[in-house]
Order: sequence, then structure tokens, then C-alpha cells
Amino acid sequence: MMDKSDMLGVLKKFPALCREALGLNKGLTVSGDITSIVVVGMGGSSIGGQILKMYMKDSKIPVFINRGYDIPAFVDHETLVFAISYSGNTEETLSAVKAAKDKKAQIIAITSGGQLEKEVEKIIKVPPGYQPRAAVPFLFFPMMGVLYNSKIIEVRNSDLNEMMQLLQDSEYYVEEGQRLAKVVKNRVPIIYTSEDFEAVGYRFKTQINENAKFPAFNNVFSEMNHNEINAFQFIERSKFMAFIIRDSKDHPRIKKRFDICSEIMGERVDVEQILTKGKCLLARIFSTIHLCDMASYYIAIEQRVDPTPVEVIEKLKKQLK
Amino acid sequence: MMDKSDMLGVLKKFPALCREALGLNKGLTVSGDITSIVVVGMGGSSIGGQILKMYMKDSKIPVFINRGYDIPAFVDHETLVFAISYSGNTEETLSAVKAAKDKKAQIIAITSGGQLEKEVEKIIKVPPGYQPRAAVPFLFFPMMGVLYNSKIIEVRNSDLNEMMQLLQDSEYYVEEGQRLAKVVKNRVPIIYTSEDFEAVGYRFKTQINENAKFPAFNNVFSEMNHNEINAFQFIERSKFMAFIIRDSKDHPRIKKRFDICSEIMGERVDVEQILTKGKCLLARIFSTIHLCDMASYYIAIEQRVDPTPVEVIEKLKKQLK
Repeated sequence: MMDKSDMLGVLKKFPALCREALGLNKGLTVSGDITSIVVVGMGGSSIGGQILKMYMKDSKIPVFINRGYDIPAFVDHETLVFAISYSGNTEETLSAVKAAKDKKAQIIAITSGGQLEKEVEKIIKVPPGYQPRAAVPFLFFPMMGVLYNSKIIEVRNSDLNEMMQLLQDSEYYVEEGQRLAKVVKNRVPIIYTSEDFEAVGYRFKTQINENAKFPAFNNVFSEMNHNEINAFQFIERSKFMAFIIRDSKDHPRIKKRFDICSEIMGERVDVEQILTKGKCLLARIFSTIHLCDMASYYIAIEQRVDPTPVEVIEKLKKQLK
Repeated sequence: MMDKSDMLGVLKKFPALCREALGLNKGLTVSGDITSIVVVGMGGSSIGGQILKMYMKDSKIPVFINRGYDIPAFVDHETLVFAISYSGNTEETLSAVKAAKDKKAQIIAITSGGQLEKEVEKIIKVPPGYQPRAAVPFLFFPMMGVLYNSKIIEVRNSDLNEMMQLLQDSEYYVEEGQRLAKVVKNRVPIIYTSEDFEAVGYRFKTQINENAKFPAFNNVFSEMNHNEINAFQFIERSKFMAFIIRDSKDHPRIKKRFDICSEIMGERVDVEQILTKGKCLLARIFSTIHLCDMASYYIAIEQRVDPTPVEVIEKLKKQLK
């Protein structure tokens, strides 16, 4: 078992991991017509795909997140499949890769090794030794690199610079992460974002689950306005609290919905607003993920839980063999 | 405000609504190449799209659920857009329809009237007077009809017969719904399904939110095995309970994961299994939705809450004007 301080150390290395990840793709490209992109991966390895979907929102090429043993029926030789498994041994991903091969999809794997390395020809090898959830930069930026090399997406150097610049202020992430963690007070967080920022809300939820071993849920505006909001009629302040992650580019009506619902929800539970920082999308995504990662670490500390080991997953994996 | 007994009355009419909905599409078809289907709708009006996605899992034509003000960038004249709003006045849907028109998509609206009826040429008009969440059969079967008429999907009469047959046993749904509701005991349900059955789990969650005004959450296997399962290390039996909705066609490894996780989760919370009934997919989907709808009604009764009105949504809508 790793030392408690390890997870904090790794989290603090997040900017360095981003920088390292940006250099990992050594000119790999895809050729021919690509009509869809499918990102195959589970848990921490699926977050990169969700970020890619956010980043490619304005692209004509749809991005699908595939979390399971099979792949969609439409996959063919014009589909680019990113197969992502940090360990390289995730059984769902290996099964989906087999299905993708049968359909002659173009496959690129991102992994630190394992069986996946043996199954796929085009590999982007990433450094081993991290918890998969801490390796997110390794699991996203190489994809971005391939798509940039293949002229499928644009990436501005100025955006990468802004992102790296914003991640440098390590004191801010520690202090703001600690402050956010103290708001939770042993109540179950429900995290809200716009539909566009769902990946960031989901990341925060899963980091609380894994680091703090604590329940947390996420949902999106405005879908929750049509159902989940009703739960706030009688919800108990002692049991739940809400985070709203707000982005400067949220649709004006989503902004208004956040304002109104903060008041409605605020009558029953404590509501904490998290505002994204930065101008370009990459900066807004990764600075918010870094902040929420830090907050999840300090939620673990507040709960007096060791953030690093995930004993339940290990137990499950053993029984699955 | 409607009488308490109304929601139960409407829920009991579910089989009749299914039968009526099957007759609603009067030969409407789409022509030309359709390369993707986008279902635009919020809340109860989005559930139909989620069921369609389930139903078309093996189709080469991908189905996208669109819950928001905009539509995906790839939408063009080869995209079939189903615009679904029971009232016809859902602002997100009206905004998305405008965007779909600009992109020359083929649009078919399903609505009981409102502004949507004026905006779209091809309309399937459904009976007014229901709560949107009770109108789900009206919001799904007409889509199925269009796609069947257009030879995009197959629908077997024997499947429809099996579904209708299975829905007839009204005593079962009342008794089993009551039994499931009694298991909850004022604890927050977390509902699990396979990725394939996510729509059914999400429907149950939203029905608990709307009918019982009570928190409920849903997630899917095996994704939750990679993060949320860790929350069960310290979760409190007095605060949460879990439903697992299991289907006979679940992947063998998903079945095994359900078995193992029932034990792991069962050490901390009560876990209740719900087994889908029926042979064909339509029967399995709609009998389970009907059962969970009934359970959500009786959860409201257990919580001493009037299932029908959704006061918080009404308050929000007023403030949004």
C-alpha cells in the first residue's frame, strides 16, 4: 500500500504530467476518411474520451464514449477507435478491441503496457506506475496529438500555453481545494454542470468516490430541471449538499437556470458555486479538473480516509478472476 | 391541483396508453438516406429517445440523445431529427429545432400541440391532458412506427403481442410495486442496470424524483465497478439502499459482476434485485418501466407525498419567464 502522502504528491504533479503528456505522441497519424471516433475505456481511462467529446463539440465528426464489452453496430473501417486502458489489462476494453478488429476499424491504443500492447499495432505508450485516475493527462493529450497530426482538429499553441500557465499556481489549487472540501461536512455532494461540462462534473464525482470512498453524484442542466429538481422539495440539509460548476461560456438560459435553482435548492441544502477559470476551453477544462481533484483529496482527509488505496475495487477484481 | 388518486389511475392505464400509442402514427415515413437519428427532448420527453437507442442497438444508424438548446455539429440533411415535447412548449426543444432547421435536417415532431406544432411540418399529434412523465408510450411508439414504415427498423407483431400480454397482469404491477416501495424505508435508492438498460434505470430514478419528490440516483455496470463501488466501503445503511435491475440478456461478465457486487454492496446497504420479465426486448423494457413507475408511486405514498403535482418545477418555470 502506498503512503497517504503519495496521492497528494501525484496530484501536485498534475501540471508536470500534462506537460509530459503533450510530448508523448511521436507523430502518429490516421489516414483515409474518418466518419466517427469511438473512445473505448472504463473509469479513469474513459474520462479522456469524455474530454475529447467536449473538445470536439463543434466538429462534424461525432465522438462516442464506449464503456463496455462490445462496440456500436455502426463501427466500420471509417471509424477511428481509441482503445484506452492505463494498465492494458481492462477486460471490457480488451473485449471491445476484439470486436473493433472484427469490424476493421482503425485502432490506436493508449496504454502503459499489459495485454492491450500485444493486441494493437498502433500504440502510444505512456509511463507506468501511477494510479489510473491520476494518469488522465496521459490518456487524453496523446489522442489530441493524433487528431492534430491528422488535421482532424485544430490545437492552438496559445491555448496550451494558457492552460499550462493557469496550472502553475499550485498554492491556489491547494488552498481552494481545501476550502471546497471543508464545505462538504460529511454530506453527500451532488455536482451540477451544463451538459457541455458533464465530463468535468463526472470526473469530480468519481474522484470523490475513489479518493474519499464517499458517495457523490452528478447531473446536468437543464435536464435535471425536468425531474431531479423535485427531490429538493424535501431533501435534508444534513444529508446532501450541492456543487454547481459554472463556465463563462454556459448558454445564457443555463446561467439563468443556475441562478434560479441556486436559490430554490439553497432553501433546502447548502449550494457552493465553482467558477471555471481561463479563456480557452482546454484551460477551463484542465484547471477545473485539477481543482476538483485536489478538493476530492481533501474531502478524503476530512473524512479521515486514506485517499490512495481502492480496496473495494481490488476485492472485486480478485473475485472476478 | 389534481387528486392524489389521479396518478395511480393514469399509471394503471399504462397498457391502454401503449395500445393507443401503437395506433398513433398514420403511415408517416422518411425518405432518402438517413445516416443518423437525433432525438431532441427533455425529461419525460427524452426517455422515448433513450428507449429508441436501446431498441436500435444493433442498427448501423447511430441514435443520439440531445438534451439541450443546441444540436450536434454533424447534423445535416441526412439526419432524422425527432423533436419531442409533450406540451410543445419546452424551450430547449424549440431552440434545438430551430438549429436543426438551419441545418436542413429532416424533422418529425411528436407533441400534443403548443408552439412546436407550428414550427414543424411533419407532426404526430398525441392526446393532451396527461403529465408528460405519464405520456411516455405516446412519445416512443410513434417514433418506432415511423422507422418501421420507413423500413429502417423491424418490429415483429409477435413482440408487440408479448409486450401487451405481459402488461395485462395489473395485479402483479400493483403488488410488486408496493413491495418494492416498502423496501426503500426512507433511504435514498441507487439504481443499477447494465449499460444497455440504462434508460430503464434512469426512468426509475426520474420517476422517484417526480412522483415521490425524493432523491434517487442511477448508474451502470460495469462503469461503476471502476469508481462508484468504492463509495460502498463506508456508506451508511440508514441513508442509502440499492436496486439492481437485471436482464436475462445481460453479458455473462455483467451477470457475474452483479453477483459479486450484490455481496460487496450488501455488506453495507440493503440490495434489492429486480428481474426483467418477458422474452423480446420491447416486453422486457416496457414491463420493467411499468413496474418501476408503480413502485415510484408507492414510494411517494410511503413518503406521504402527493405523487401528482411537481411544485418545484412549476416554481422554476414561473421564474424563468
